[in-house]
Amino acid sequence: MPLKERLPQLVEVIEGRLQSFLNDLDFGASAELRTMLRYHLGWEDELAGGKRLRPVITLLCAEACGGDAAAAMPAALGIEFLHNFTLIHDDIEDQSPTRHGRATLWTRWGLAQAVNAGDALFSIAQLALLGLTETCGEAVALRAVREMNQVCLHLTRGQYLDIAFETEDAVDLEAYLAMIGGKTAALIAYSTAMGGLAAGASKVTLTRLRTLGEALGMAFQIQDDYLGIWGDPAVTGKSASVDLLARKKTLPVLFGLRESSEFRALWHVENPALGQIRAMADLLEACGAGAYVKALAGKYIHQAHEGLVGLFPRPNADARVLMALIGMLLHREL
Amino acid sequence: MPLKERLPQLVEVIEGRLQSFLNDLDFGASAELRTMLRYHLGWEDELAGGKRLRPVITLLCAEACGGDAAAAMPAALGIEFLHNFTLIHDDIEDQSPTRHGRATLWTRWGLAQAVNAGDALFSIAQLALLGLTETCGEAVALRAVREMNQVCLHLTRGQYLDIAFETEDAVDLEAYLAMIGGKTAALIAYSTAMGGLAAGASKVTLTRLRTLGEALGMAFQIQDDYLGIWGDPAVTGKSASVDLLARKKTLPVLFGLRESSEFRALWHVENPALGQIRAMADLLEACGAGAYVKALAGKYIHQAHEGLVGLFPRPNADARVLMALIGMLLHREL
Repeated sequence: MPLKERLPQLVEVIEGRLQSFLNDLDFGASAELRTMLRYHLGWEDELAGGKRLRPVITLLCAEACGGDAAAAMPAALGIEFLHNFTLIHDDIEDQSPTRHGRATLWTRWGLAQAVNAGDALFSIAQLALLGLTETCGEAVALRAVREMNQVCLHLTRGQYLDIAFETEDAVDLEAYLAMIGGKTAALIAYSTAMGGLAAGASKVTLTRLRTLGEALGMAFQIQDDYLGIWGDPAVTGKSASVDLLARKKTLPVLFGLRESSEFRALWHVENPALGQIRAMADLLEACGAGAYVKALAGKYIHQAHEGLVGLFPRPNADARVLMALIGMLLHREL
Repeated sequence: MPLKERLPQLVEVIEGRLQSFLNDLDFGASAELRTMLRYHLGWEDELAGGKRLRPVITLLCAEACGGDAAAAMPAALGIEFLHNFTLIHDDIEDQSPTRHGRATLWTRWGLAQAVNAGDALFSIAQLALLGLTETCGEAVALRAVREMNQVCLHLTRGQYLDIAFETEDAVDLEAYLAMIGGKTAALIAYSTAMGGLAAGASKVTLTRLRTLGEALGMAFQIQDDYLGIWGDPAVTGKSASVDLLARKKTLPVLFGLRESSEFRALWHVENPALGQIRAMADLLEACGAGAYVKALAGKYIHQAHEGLVGLFPRPNADARVLMALIGMLLHREL
């Protein structure tokens, strides 16, 4: 089955299972807490579900390894809940008023309730994951929950750096890569590995799946950094140079701050005009930031493709779907 | 060994194990995140460790059930880390600038870093708990981690109500009890039960331990509510009527709001003078709030004592230490 048919099918199954898991939990007198989580997940008022990319990757990896999507489902659910817990707290930490065009949880229910709702979702993620006990046995469930908490610790280390960078003048490129390694790549690597683990993949395959996920996550984030400045608004759905407008210290900006004194001067202008934003993007291009970021994304894209070579010993239909998805993610127009 | 010798001994062991667990974790470039957690736990700058009451209860319950404190240690560590994760987020949600006379994490490092540090400690709590795999086997570890997440969900339900109550005019006494059941009693019930679980206690004993912990938690919290208004400043170390000053809707206040129109009128005075605070405390006493709260605490104290009868089939030295601790907790001067 081609990706464009398989993808909506998988997303629909995941969506249904996420909803029923949350609905089956007992919230007692705190039913509004469930409503908050349903709103965040896109099931209340204005509907707006996420892409469910991470659980799709988990299920496809399980199938590509010769396993069963149903066995890996608890991992997929746990990963999507976990991802959304981090989004709730990220929005608070970044003071983002909106996400996907809707009010964030903290702007709608207040800071205190939103912090608490995030905590609830973190617990729910782990409870969903522990369903692996029934589908894959105790040893797999224990390993998965231990690794999930290691990934979370990695995420918070990345998030620590991200928050710290905001108030730092000069950020090391290496520190930046460590930050996105925690913030983005760690959970994608967990998503690929858990698919393999649920399918009973060998130790070698698990390591390779993890490396693949890490490269995928790094490539994806670095592409995002590129598109945040040079992306076509018609394709990205965001304004041109959105990251410059938001003053985000992404990879091209860090490169520019180091390499171009002209860019540095403009970056420190308060409330820059639109013309100055455009000038900044041009200065970044001129000092080689665009080429640098493209090349670095290329390095991780190459790593991801290398990681796929021979990963699944007997190429099968499921592996082809996974590869198509990875290809789609890696080859966004740069 | 009498409680007053055993208690500091246990606290010292727990303290050392908590410190070494945190120090052994890899924080990479985010070493400051560890410093934040060490500060919160009382190991940086001004030293101020907590009472470590919950892990002490876990270890004493394990011993009273004929088990080994060493086997239960991972549960004790996980519980204390978890308790502290909730304190970090509580301080944010309540906007408390200080705890035990020191700046809270969010006032010192900012809101964003404090939310994130709390998340890190939640993961660390689960990683510490999973040490049960080595001391008690996979089945016990899995059960403990599943129940920890159920308890966390219960905690967030209680916290949801607590935050919601702040802006509600009339709070049902029943809803209030549900709130403290989640906020205080659930984790103490988990602390008693996990001691028994690590000691291989029977299903019946586990249920009884849980009921005991719940009664203990309820009694403790209701006593706290009493002492927050009528406690002797010389004993509590807090100002007289501290909860009225802080305008906390504790149990006596809810009772007074329902029963006394005079109290209700004074409660709604903005910035009440010290004389008015004293008058409020007197009105609460006069309308029967003090007697009501004392009686309710008494009900749970009785339940806790009932729970101890015959709980440990062969009374042993360890059970006596546990009972002495519980007696100490339950019989604070009301």
